[in-house]
Amino acid sequence: MRNLLMKVNYDGTTYDGFQTQPQGNTIQDRLEEAILHLTGEDLKIHASGRTDAGVHAYGQPFNFITSSQIPLERWCLALNARLPQDIVVTEAREVPLSFHSRRSAKRKTYRYTINANQFPDPFQRRWQLHHPGILDVSAMQQGLTHLLGTHDFTSFASRHSTKTSHVRTIYEAHMEVDTSMCRPNPRDQGVIHVFITGSGFLQHMVRIIMGTLINVGQGKCPADKVAHILAACDRGAAGPTAVANGLTLWSVEYEEADYKKAD
Amino acid sequence: MRNLLMKVNYDGTTYDGFQTQPQGNTIQDRLEEAILHLTGEDLKIHASGRTDAGVHAYGQPFNFITSSQIPLERWCLALNARLPQDIVVTEAREVPLSFHSRRSAKRKTYRYTINANQFPDPFQRRWQLHHPGILDVSAMQQGLTHLLGTHDFTSFASRHSTKTSHVRTIYEAHMEVDTSMCRPNPRDQGVIHVFITGSGFLQHMVRIIMGTLINVGQGKCPADKVAHILAACDRGAAGPTAVANGLTLWSVEYEEADYKKAD
Repeated sequence: MRNLLMKVNYDGTTYDGFQTQPQGNTIQDRLEEAILHLTGEDLKIHASGRTDAGVHAYGQPFNFITSSQIPLERWCLALNARLPQDIVVTEAREVPLSFHSRRSAKRKTYRYTINANQFPDPFQRRWQLHHPGILDVSAMQQGLTHLLGTHDFTSFASRHSTKTSHVRTIYEAHMEVDTSMCRPNPRDQGVIHVFITGSGFLQHMVRIIMGTLINVGQGKCPADKVAHILAACDRGAAGPTAVANGLTLWSVEYEEADYKKAD
Repeated sequence: MRNLLMKVNYDGTTYDGFQTQPQGNTIQDRLEEAILHLTGEDLKIHASGRTDAGVHAYGQPFNFITSSQIPLERWCLALNARLPQDIVVTEAREVPLSFHSRRSAKRKTYRYTINANQFPDPFQRRWQLHHPGILDVSAMQQGLTHLLGTHDFTSFASRHSTKTSHVRTIYEAHMEVDTSMCRPNPRDQGVIHVFITGSGFLQHMVRIIMGTLINVGQGKCPADKVAHILAACDRGAAGPTAVANGLTLWSVEYEEADYKKAD
């Protein structure tokens, strides 16, 4: 028996999120079908976490226990040949049997992307929120800093969250503005990427943070009010939930000791 | 009557190229329908040139003569509201009645993109040729330089070309390698963009140049042989026609005097 840790990239546009659900077309379903087709094993994979419908991932880890003898270096190509083109497995390694993609995860990073140019980009639109109005990026950056550290993030969690604790830690957060695709036009502000790294994220947490930051960028909410919104522990205090398609699970980090297989 | 020059971006994946054709689903059809819907005018637009089925464009110019009174600054939004999401009009300006997008064009630039990483990229796959094997980029660059200048490009034209002259000028050509999405893996070579600027291009010309350069990159053909292929004036001497989806019409340039409206 081996415990295999893999990484998968997917364009989540047409999927109902990662995790299997009734009548859902999910990434997990497609991966488990590909594994069944390849090995004959009808098994369950463990992911680093759920993603919402329409959310994307670059390098989302998942693991599973297999008795297949297929050599490690053959797995990616063999699975990709059995997956739709919008799901691509890029890495496979053997890890200790105790390793679990979600329980062993130490840090997760999400990226949220806003196209702040005047017109939508037909090439990148599937993973961008289009916001044609000018945004005050430095105010948004200032708002973001209020979220750093360990807090109760109830204001930034879905009302449907079933977690007993809403305390999470945000380790890092920063913004990048890519102006390479701007026309020489003051109404093209660039593509804004927001990266947020934390211990874990509540349901809709990044999207509600983004809805709130966009309010800040539009001048509807002063940057310093983000601290008050956080302190309120009230979902009603924060901004709207930004659309799912702008969100990409960007990386998941583990302790080397947890996934390094002792040979 | 006004002559309006516009620029359009499109993801050509699902279209049969730019130009109207029987039973075709083309960019021109969608643009003319949007104009008809907006103005009631059943008119023909003039493009800077054709693009093949599956080819994309960033800023492809087209123009048309209209008697509509719609102010210039309203056209883009109004047309985009009537276009599919994968076609976006980004600029509109009035030009002299003598201006014609194709006949007035002085320089055109195409970009061809090769994903030379081990695995396909689910986000960018629609506008990339995936070539997982290692390519010798400096040999490709050397091969490309043999095409600079004015030559008979019969070797790099479709056998179905109906042009009386195959003499064209390539003004500039260069390659860029983007390694930002590479994994720490020697089998990820990056995303290779090839930019070629010329006076005009024959049918399939950029795609046949690319098929030939890929042969060079694979070591199947020495870089210096590109000069002999060019001199042969024989389509059979060159490499295969690279797939359409890697190709994007990148820019079309005009003389300022030709499109600047004398007020």
